[in-house]
Amino acid sequence: MNKTIHCLIEQLGELETALHEQDFLLTWEQSEANLKATLLVAEILEELYLANVDTRVFTSGLAVSIFRDNSTRTRFSFASAASALGLSVMDLDETKSQIAHGETVRETANMISFLTQVIGIRDDMFLGEGHEYMAEVSRAVRQGHEEGNLPQKPAIINLQCDRDHPTQTMADLLHLQKTFGSLEALRGKKIAMTWAFSPSYGKPLSVPQGIVGLMTRFGMKVSLAHPQGYGIMPEIQEIARRQAPASGGSFEVTDSMAEAFDGADIVYPKSWAPYDVMQRRTELLRGGHSDQLAALEKECLARNDSHRDWECTEELMARTQGGKALYMHCLPADITGVSCEQGEVAASVFDRYRSATYHEAKHKPYVIAAMMLLNRFEHADRTLHQVGERAALRQLFT
Amino acid sequence: MNKTIHCLIEQLGELETALHEQDFLLTWEQSEANLKATLLVAEILEELYLANVDTRVFTSGLAVSIFRDNSTRTRFSFASAASALGLSVMDLDETKSQIAHGETVRETANMISFLTQVIGIRDDMFLGEGHEYMAEVSRAVRQGHEEGNLPQKPAIINLQCDRDHPTQTMADLLHLQKTFGSLEALRGKKIAMTWAFSPSYGKPLSVPQGIVGLMTRFGMKVSLAHPQGYGIMPEIQEIARRQAPASGGSFEVTDSMAEAFDGADIVYPKSWAPYDVMQRRTELLRGGHSDQLAALEKECLARNDSHRDWECTEELMARTQGGKALYMHCLPADITGVSCEQGEVAASVFDRYRSATYHEAKHKPYVIAAMMLLNRFEHADRTLHQVGERAALRQLFT
Amino acid sequence: MNKTIHCLIEQLGELETALHEQDFLLTWEQSEANLKATLLVAEILEELYLANVDTRVFTSGLAVSIFRDNSTRTRFSFASAASALGLSVMDLDETKSQIAHGETVRETANMISFLTQVIGIRDDMFLGEGHEYMAEVSRAVRQGHEEGNLPQKPAIINLQCDRDHPTQTMADLLHLQKTFGSLEALRGKKIAMTWAFSPSYGKPLSVPQGIVGLMTRFGMKVSLAHPQGYGIMPEIQEIARRQAPASGGSFEVTDSMAEAFDGADIVYPKSWAPYDVMQRRTELLRGGHSDQLAALEKECLARNDSHRDWECTEELMARTQGGKALYMHCLPADITGVSCEQGEVAASVFDRYRSATYHEAKHKPYVIAAMMLLNRFEHADRTLHQVGERAALRQLFT
Repeated sequence: MNKTIHCLIEQLGELETALHEQDFLLTWEQSEANLKATLLVAEILEELYLANVDTRVFTSGLAVSIFRDNSTRTRFSFASAASALGLSVMDLDETKSQIAHGETVRETANMISFLTQVIGIRDDMFLGEGHEYMAEVSRAVRQGHEEGNLPQKPAIINLQCDRDHPTQTMADLLHLQKTFGSLEALRGKKIAMTWAFSPSYGKPLSVPQGIVGLMTRFGMKVSLAHPQGYGIMPEIQEIARRQAPASGGSFEVTDSMAEAFDGADIVYPKSWAPYDVMQRRTELLRGGHSDQLAALEKECLARNDSHRDWECTEELMARTQGGKALYMHCLPADITGVSCEQGEVAASVFDRYRSATYHEAKHKPYVIAAMMLLNRFEHADRTLHQVGERAALRQLFT
Repeated sequence: MNKTIHCLIEQLGELETALHEQDFLLTWEQSEANLKATLLVAEILEELYLANVDTRVFTSGLAVSIFRDNSTRTRFSFASAASALGLSVMDLDETKSQIAHGETVRETANMISFLTQVIGIRDDMFLGEGHEYMAEVSRAVRQGHEEGNLPQKPAIINLQCDRDHPTQTMADLLHLQKTFGSLEALRGKKIAMTWAFSPSYGKPLSVPQGIVGLMTRFGMKVSLAHPQGYGIMPEIQEIARRQAPASGGSFEVTDSMAEAFDGADIVYPKSWAPYDVMQRRTELLRGGHSDQLAALEKECLARNDSHRDWECTEELMARTQGGKALYMHCLPADITGVSCEQGEVAASVFDRYRSATYHEAKHKPYVIAAMMLLNRFEHADRTLHQVGERAALRQLFT
Repeated sequence: MNKTIHCLIEQLGELETALHEQDFLLTWEQSEANLKATLLVAEILEELYLANVDTRVFTSGLAVSIFRDNSTRTRFSFASAASALGLSVMDLDETKSQIAHGETVRETANMISFLTQVIGIRDDMFLGEGHEYMAEVSRAVRQGHEEGNLPQKPAIINLQCDRDHPTQTMADLLHLQKTFGSLEALRGKKIAMTWAFSPSYGKPLSVPQGIVGLMTRFGMKVSLAHPQGYGIMPEIQEIARRQAPASGGSFEVTDSMAEAFDGADIVYPKSWAPYDVMQRRTELLRGGHSDQLAALEKECLARNDSHRDWECTEELMARTQGGKALYMHCLPADITGVSCEQGEVAASVFDRYRSATYHEAKHKPYVIAAMMLLNRFEHADRTLHQVGERAALRQLFT
C-alpha cells in the first residue's frame, strides 16, 4: 500500500462520522465530517484503482438502480462503483415490473432487497416528489430489516432528486479540492453558479440547488445568478443563506450574469427551468394533462428566448479572477455552434475547459462507491486498510 | 461452518435425488426426495448467506433470463440467485434480438448457451404454450450438449409457466415448513387455496395450480375454492386428486370461500382468470384478434363483478383455526382501500400478515439458487460442504 | 496446464503482434501475425474453458456494449467473453441516455469509460457510418487517456459495422481451421461466398465483405457470386482483389451461383441488400424520409423476387467438391419450408449442416475475448501462461 493511500486512510480514521446505515440523500443534512469522509473514501478508492488494487469488499450481492429519468454518466458511474466493490447491477425497469398493478413502494423496496446492498435512485421529474420517494424507500428497507425480512438494510443513494444531486456536487467538490489543492484553499474563493440560456427546456433544478447547498459549507463566496423568474426552491436558498455565514463564506443572489462573474474563481453556467414552471409542469403531469405540456413548453421557450445573452462568452470570462476562472459543468453542455445554434457556453471557452470538465466527471464513480462503502461498513478506515493490505491485483499483470 | 449448516448438509446427503442435469419444470414430475433436496439446499444457502459465507461455485459464466411477461420479484430473485452462485445475468430481450426473423427455438437456445449455466424462463401468457416452450428449450440444449456444441447443458428453470410456478410454490412450502416447524408438521393441516375478487383481470392460473399440485404431496387437507366457472386446468385438478390420498391428505373443490376457510390452518386467497377465459384469450392472441380482447376483458370484468364478496375479510378469517390461520400471498395483493377500491383482502387482515408475506417472499432467491445448484452439481452435498469449508467471506469484515 | 494449451501459448509467443492498445476494427488493416494471434488466443481461451480453468484477468471493471441494431448471438457472445475475463457488462441504451440532447461522441465515449476496459459496438444500419463511428470512439478514448481523464484506453471491438464483421469472420476462420486441420490446409481451397434469395430485405453487407476481405489472406480461391446489381462496396472488392494474389490465392466475381459452387470446398450462401439500395436507404433515413422507405422496400423485394432460384439446393451442393462442401452460415438462415416459404437454403441441406453451423458459432465468444485480451495486455502469452499456472477452477468441483 503506497504512502498517499496510507495517509488518506489515517485522515479518515480521525473523523467522527455517522454514515453507517444512514442514507446520504441531501448534502445539507450531513455533518462536515460526513462530507469530508465521503471525499476521502472517494480519493482512496481512486488511488487504489490507479495502483491496480482490487477494491472489492463483497463477493456477491446486488446494486439496484431505479432510473425514473434518463441518464448516461450517472448510470455508468453507478455501475462502475458497483463493480469496483464487487456488486452486480440490476436495473429496476418499472415498465417491465408489476408495480403498475397496485404495489406499494414499501413492498417493492423489500422485494428487490433480499440480497441487495445498495439501491441508487434518480427521480427528478416532479418537484416535491423525488426526495420523498427516496426517503420512503429508505424507511421501507429500514423497517424490512428491523422486521427480519431483509438480512441487511441496503444503502439508498440519491442519484439526483428534485432538490439535490449529491453524487454530482460531491464529485464537483472533489474536483475543486484537487484543482485548488485542498478544501481549506477554497475559503474565500468566489464561485458563480449562474443560469445560462439553452434551446431546450425543463432541465432539473437539482444541480444549482445542490451547488449552493454544498459550496456554502466551505467558506466560499457563492453567487447565484439568474434572470428574474428563474429562481430555485426558496427553502434551499434559505439553507444556503444560513450556511454561508456559519462557514465564514457568503451567499448572494443576483440577476446579472456579469456581476456574478466579476472576480469569480470558479464559474458554473448552466440552464435550468424556472421553479414556477417546474411546479406547473408537475401539476400538469400529475393531473394527466399531458396535452397542455406542449403549450407550457412553448411559453417557456419564448420566455427563455429573451435571455439569449446569458451565455458564458469570452467577454464574460475576461471579468473573472485574472480572466482564468475554472469553468465547470455537469455535462452535457449546450455549446454554441457545436451542439446547438446558441447555448450555454461559447465554443472557444468550452474547448479550453473540455478536458477539465472530463476530469470533473471522472470522480463520480468513486464518490458513489464511497457513499456505498461508508453506508455498508461501520469502520470504513479499517475496511480500506484491509483492502490495501490484501493487495490483490485488479488487473492481472503480464 | 456452523452446526445447523453441517446438519442440513448431512440430511441432504441422505436423499436419493435425480436432479443433476434434469430440469425442474413442474413439481408433480419430481420425486419427494427431489423436492426435499431443493428445500434443503435453499435452507443451506440461506444459512450460509446469513453466516456471511461466500457461496459462489462459479467464477464466471452466464445465467440467462427470458421474461415473456412482466416480473419484479422473480426477476430480482433470479438475479440474486445468480450472483450468489457467481454467475452474470444476461436478459434475452426478444424485442432486441433477431428472433423475429425466422430463428427457431432450438437455434436461439443454443446460440445463447455457449458459456451459459442456467436459463430461467417466464412464459405464462398463453395456455398450453409456456410449459411446451420450456420443454423445447430443455430438449434443444440437451441435444446441443450431446452434439458437442455446448460444453455444458444449462439448467432450465421454470420462472412461471401456464401450468406451474415452482419457484413460488417451493418458496411457499419453505415458508410453511419454517412457520409450522417441519414438513412433518404440515400433515393434516388444512390449506384453503381460494379465488378472490380483483378489479383486474387475466391473472395466470399457475399459482393456484402450483399450490394444489404441490401441497397435496405432504399429507395436507387441500381445499380449492372458486366461484362456478373459475376452475383451473382439469388435468392439474386430476393430479391433485390423485396425489392427495397417496400422501395421506385430501383434496376437495368447493364453490364456497367460507367453506374452504372453515377450520383452515392456512389461507391463500388470490384472484385468477377462469380457465375458459384464458383459453379464449389465448385463441384471440394467437389469431391476431387483439381487437376482440377488449370485449373479452369487459365481459370478464362484468363476470368478476358478481363475485365481489370473495374477499378475505376479518369475518372469514374468524372462521379459520382459532381465527388465526396463516395468510399467504405471492404478492402483489389487491388490498381493499389500499391498492384498489375493493380487492382480494381487507386492509386489516393484510396489515397483520404483511411482514409474514415478505418472509414468504424472501425464500425465493434461495429456492432458485438451489434449483440451479442441484442441476449443475452432481453431488450437491459435497459441493456445499466444500463451500462451507472454504469459509470465504461474502462481505469483507471491518 | 495441459500440453495443448502450453503448446498454443508457445506459438503465440513467437508471433510479432501489434495489438496492444490498438483497436481491431477491420481485418484488412491487421497484419497476418495479428490475425493468427487472435485465433490462437481464442483457441487457448476455449481450451482453458473446457479444462475448467478460471480465465479472469480482471477482478472488476466494465465491458460496455452499444448496439445500434438488433443482435442475439453477438450480444451473448460479448457478454460471455466479458464474464470469462472478469468484466461486468453495461449496455448503453441510447434511448435511455441523454445523448439525444446534444452530446458529442467524444464526450459520451469518455463519460462511459472511467472504469471501462472494453467497448463493443454494433453499427451496421448506415453505409459509410458504422466504421466512422467506431473510429471516432476509438480516437476519443485514446485522447481521453492521453489527457489523463481515463486511467486506461478501453479496447474498441467492432461487433459489426457497415464494412466488416470481424468477430463473425474470425470465428468462421477458426471454424475452417478446425474443420480442415490448420490454416495451411486452407491454401488452394475454394470458398463460394454467394448471395442467396430471402423473403426479407435490407440485410447488411458486412458478412460477405468481411468474408472476401479475410479469406483472400490465406491462399484460398475466393469466389463471390451475386445477381447483377447486388454488388458489395467497390473498395472492399478492390481490397480482396489485391490481397488474393499476394497470399497465393485468387478472387473472382461471378453472377452465377452454380459457377461459384463448382468444385467448391466451402459454400457460404447468404442474402444481403444490394449496395445501391443500401445507399438509397441510408440517404432516406438520414434525410428523415422514412415515408419513402416502404416504397424502396417494395421495389427491392420485387427485384429480389426475380432471383428466387438463388437457393442452396441439393442440386447445387452436388456440384461442389465431392458433393460435400462445408456449408457455412452466420445464422439465422432463411430455410425453405422452415423459417419461410422459400429462402436461402433447402431444408435438407441445412439439416445436414445444422450442427456444423452451431459449431461455427460457438467460437465467437472466444474470438471476442481474444480481441479484448490482446488489446488490454501487452504480453498476452505471459498473461495466459499466468492464467494457466494459477490453475484456479472455473466451476467448483463436487
